[in-house]
Amino acid sequence: MPLLVMKFGGTSVGSLDRIKRAAKRIGVEVAKGYDVIVIVSAMSGKTNELVGWVNETSPLYDAREYDAVVSSGENVTAGLMALTLQEMDIPARSWQGWQVPLKTTSAHANARIEEIPTDNMNAKFGEGMRVAVVAGFQGISPEGRITTLGRGGSDTTAVAFAAAFEAERCDIYTDVDGVYTTDPRISNKARKLDKIAFEEMLELASLGAKVLQTRSVELAMRFGVRLRVLSSFEENDENSGTLVCAEEDIMESNVVAGVAYSRDEAKVTLVSVADRPGIAAAIFGPLSEAGVNVDMIVQNISEDGRTDMTFSCPTDQVARAEAAMQASKDAGDINYHDLVADTDVAKISIVGIGMRSHAGVAAQMFKALQDEGINIKVITTSEIKVSVLIDRKYMELAVQALHDSFELEKA
Amino acid sequence: MPLLVMKFGGTSVGSLDRIKRAAKRIGVEVAKGYDVIVIVSAMSGKTNELVGWVNETSPLYDAREYDAVVSSGENVTAGLMALTLQEMDIPARSWQGWQVPLKTTSAHANARIEEIPTDNMNAKFGEGMRVAVVAGFQGISPEGRITTLGRGGSDTTAVAFAAAFEAERCDIYTDVDGVYTTDPRISNKARKLDKIAFEEMLELASLGAKVLQTRSVELAMRFGVRLRVLSSFEENDENSGTLVCAEEDIMESNVVAGVAYSRDEAKVTLVSVADRPGIAAAIFGPLSEAGVNVDMIVQNISEDGRTDMTFSCPTDQVARAEAAMQASKDAGDINYHDLVADTDVAKISIVGIGMRSHAGVAAQMFKALQDEGINIKVITTSEIKVSVLIDRKYMELAVQALHDSFELEKA
Repeated sequence: MPLLVMKFGGTSVGSLDRIKRAAKRIGVEVAKGYDVIVIVSAMSGKTNELVGWVNETSPLYDAREYDAVVSSGENVTAGLMALTLQEMDIPARSWQGWQVPLKTTSAHANARIEEIPTDNMNAKFGEGMRVAVVAGFQGISPEGRITTLGRGGSDTTAVAFAAAFEAERCDIYTDVDGVYTTDPRISNKARKLDKIAFEEMLELASLGAKVLQTRSVELAMRFGVRLRVLSSFEENDENSGTLVCAEEDIMESNVVAGVAYSRDEAKVTLVSVADRPGIAAAIFGPLSEAGVNVDMIVQNISEDGRTDMTFSCPTDQVARAEAAMQASKDAGDINYHDLVADTDVAKISIVGIGMRSHAGVAAQMFKALQDEGINIKVITTSEIKVSVLIDRKYMELAVQALHDSFELEKA
Repeated sequence: MPLLVMKFGGTSVGSLDRIKRAAKRIGVEVAKGYDVIVIVSAMSGKTNELVGWVNETSPLYDAREYDAVVSSGENVTAGLMALTLQEMDIPARSWQGWQVPLKTTSAHANARIEEIPTDNMNAKFGEGMRVAVVAGFQGISPEGRITTLGRGGSDTTAVAFAAAFEAERCDIYTDVDGVYTTDPRISNKARKLDKIAFEEMLELASLGAKVLQTRSVELAMRFGVRLRVLSSFEENDENSGTLVCAEEDIMESNVVAGVAYSRDEAKVTLVSVADRPGIAAAIFGPLSEAGVNVDMIVQNISEDGRTDMTFSCPTDQVARAEAAMQASKDAGDINYHDLVADTDVAKISIVGIGMRSHAGVAAQMFKALQDEGINIKVITTSEIKVSVLIDRKYMELAVQALHDSFELEKA
């Protein structure tokens, strides 16, 4: 029988009523003739409660025990979902990570999936089981301990099952009805996309469009899993939501797929750095070791053997960056006059696979911002993305201006 | 190293603070040089919440899914306890039932323990682990599904571990500080017993002194596990609580160890039953099939080929008993004029291994009740117990009179 993977997040299974609603969605697919693997998260709030207890008990906790505790929420939902399906006369059973077994690395609290054997579960499908309800976010280490995959790990679980079982599609049910050209709270012209390429989704996800976890999209891209994002709170049909798929599956698309933003960016400038071969490594090596996620980097033209080096990083990592730079300066590894941090900036990006074959996209972006009198502080580009750092107060205006300029409201 | 098993019930681990208090108790034993296996229940209220969800989802639930859901509470406590011990620099880790693995039958929701392999855990003790924190109440079936042992199964888990690992003692921490000669709420002369024999404890437990689950006492008796019941809310030393042990370990004891009572008994009389060989089987067979737990049975002297048959059963099973009897009468299997149910009775029992070697104990009991003007409705006796059914309004008076008569306040 054809197989579907369906994933329901915490808000979609946040109460017995919501579990029932999700079960009805599953029932629709079973009625169509699909066998279904359902991945469930913990009921909303449960994982946070468990994490809170662990942190209160042991701030520098043993991650193996953290995993043993926080994985329990998903087990509860999986059992309740199986019971709900059984009440609808659908043969279903729950599977905890170790029962599959979903094998992972030993990197507790942030494990990576290594293997999902399909024999056990396929045997049960062969015996008449129609729905396997799998507790998401968890697996088992080579040492036989419970592991978790890190936040959002249920999305990754879903995609990994879809890949292992060669599912026809992986439907991610969430509290939004798809991926939009931009945040509808910022632009009322935002339009839901019917399809988006994996590469575009990756850029949008990592830029703050928090619909899907980045890892799950990477995994889907690697294994060619067709991902669909859709709402568990609305009526759905075959064409609901947004399909995240390979570029080849998208016949025609706009040059720009969407406008993303992030308000948690800070701009840090090292003023008058002694310019010499290896200076970039001397700066960004220590930052990396200090756990600072550097995103954009700009180096000014050198003058009299000195230059300004500017980079962006998440706002809450600025203090760590300053400490790392001061330490390197004290050690004599680098030399600069001043470190200036500007936390009042935002990052705006346009993303689209169509950029590859279209010239002038970046120029159009800069023109649109200029027309609104918005000054650009830093620029970076990639094959399918152009990002700029601007004053945060212009963030909404910039998103709206770019959405208009690229006519994203039109399909 | 010598090994102890310590078990903490739901109220003893009902909050992070209480888990910390229990961990301190464990630390005391570790400091004395013991390796410790700790059995924990779910935080108080958690299991009831989970059971409620299961019942609401599926009244006639699949017991395999019930077990998968309700076992999760213990997993949370086990992880939190391991973390708390680690914070005290005690090498500890949690074990879920399937990790041990604690092997059980497939009788879901009421499984029996079949085997506890000791190799895995002993290897960890060998590597320096001082405390193994085991999630109580749960195991794994031959099919690889999670099982639970039924209510109070954490006591049974504790005793089974003590037997498998040949522990020096099994300490059951609970919200009372030991086993009393009778309920202190009824008699202010009630005295805590230092020691009690397994057989006595079994009679007291099944009679309503709900300190230990009957199954756990049976198991302890079979394997000679020394059980100690003590409070997790008081300071303890070597002599705290009550030791439940083999008869041989008790040098001298009172003839009567305690007075137990049960107010949930009903007396049912079948009036004028046609007396013939096999009549008892014709009555009590159908009652057993209907799930009625018959306790005491009295048959009057036969007169003119007819007799009265009286039995006691829990009050909430009277309706079921009446239905079963009516059905047998309608089928022509038995014949009686009337069925009279008296739900206004109580059962009072005196229990003591000393009765075996002392005559006149029953007579002293009847005399004490007679002196208070209390009429006895039904009597049963065993080697170490005498039970009577009386009007419920005299229950407290009877308990006090018997406690006085046998001078149970004196050690």
